[in-house]
Amino acid sequence: MRVLVPFDARSPKTRLSGVLDDENRNEFARVMLDDVLEVLQRAGHQPHVISTGEVSCECPVRIDEQPLTAAINDRLAAVDPPVGIVMADLALLCVATVERLVETDGDVVIAPGLGGGTNALVVRTPDFRVDYHGTSFRDHRRQADSIDATSTIFDSFRVTLDIDEPDDLVEVLLHNQNRAATWLEQHGFSIGHAGDERTLLRSVE
Amino acid sequence: MRVLVPFDARSPKTRLSGVLDDENRNEFARVMLDDVLEVLQRAGHQPHVISTGEVSCECPVRIDEQPLTAAINDRLAAVDPPVGIVMADLALLCVATVERLVETDGDVVIAPGLGGGTNALVVRTPDFRVDYHGTSFRDHRRQADSIDATSTIFDSFRVTLDIDEPDDLVEVLLHNQNRAATWLEQHGFSIGHAGDERTLLRSVE
Repeated sequence: MRVLVPFDARSPKTRLSGVLDDENRNEFARVMLDDVLEVLQRAGHQPHVISTGEVSCECPVRIDEQPLTAAINDRLAAVDPPVGIVMADLALLCVATVERLVETDGDVVIAPGLGGGTNALVVRTPDFRVDYHGTSFRDHRRQADSIDATSTIFDSFRVTLDIDEPDDLVEVLLHNQNRAATWLEQHGFSIGHAGDERTLLRSVE
Repeated sequence: MRVLVPFDARSPKTRLSGVLDDENRNEFARVMLDDVLEVLQRAGHQPHVISTGEVSCECPVRIDEQPLTAAINDRLAAVDPPVGIVMADLALLCVATVERLVETDGDVVIAPGLGGGTNALVVRTPDFRVDYHGTSFRDHRRQADSIDATSTIFDSFRVTLDIDEPDDLVEVLLHNQNRAATWLEQHGFSIGHAGDERTLLRSVE
């Protein structure tokens, strides 16, 4: 299946600015993208990066400077379903989860993000369009209803937990088994062993 | 399957004290417990509440004032596997997720909590014991390895997202379809429609 992977090549992961400077944020965002692309390919799918700027990688890249919603909807209008849409910061994604996502029934399969966003979609009907503004999870369900398409909620922490904030890096260290966790470890991050479960430590470099 | 549901009847959900007073926290914790028990029963299982204090409900309740780890390990030592252990604050749990959890292979099935905790277990070997302190998700995997038991990670946002902090109430409003979401709405909570996805609103009563 063709899977669109939107990527912000200009100012990725700004909410990590408290723990990573510009250069490191760019590098870490790129490492997560590479992990996502590899997982999708290993699961037998064809990732297509939709990027706001230049990014060199081995799979097809389309530069589109429009906002996310417009860029994705242009692609949905141009290609035949089924189409997957998977965010580039899903560093916890693994092959088994992608397989389960693609095997899930429904004209539209919607994986919520924390707080009501949408982190992954499988779109099997030509009329569905995205709207990533606000609590898009609810809006995407309503939009499916409005075109008489069935929608299914996909239940996965590996998709629901995208990596936006410093606390989320703990999840990468715990659950990513690829480049992203290694990159964090190489940059001094580790999990704290204090009573508090969610403690991110960083060694002074 | 017998499913142990530990419940803190004394001072539940203290991290919600910024948005709910003592009485409301007790009530909301109890509403979430009722939702979890109902989902387990509808999925065909037998919940057994392990409570730190009196709680009246229709399923069996055992009062145990020990810390969580000791209370659960006493039960694991006393009953034959398989045994499930499901936290009482999994307000997003639904029947399909419980079915998938119980169908997951492995001597020990481990559902992580956000930040490295453990929110649900299925234990199919008599020798496994829990340790909920710290990053228990990793410790439980290691413990399974140490007794030559296979362990499987269960991938579900409905189990991984327990309800501890004010932000988590957004997830209840989005994904709970039972008492807990209704209780929050009746107590003035709703989801904000600002640009920020994760906005919790509360009307002044």
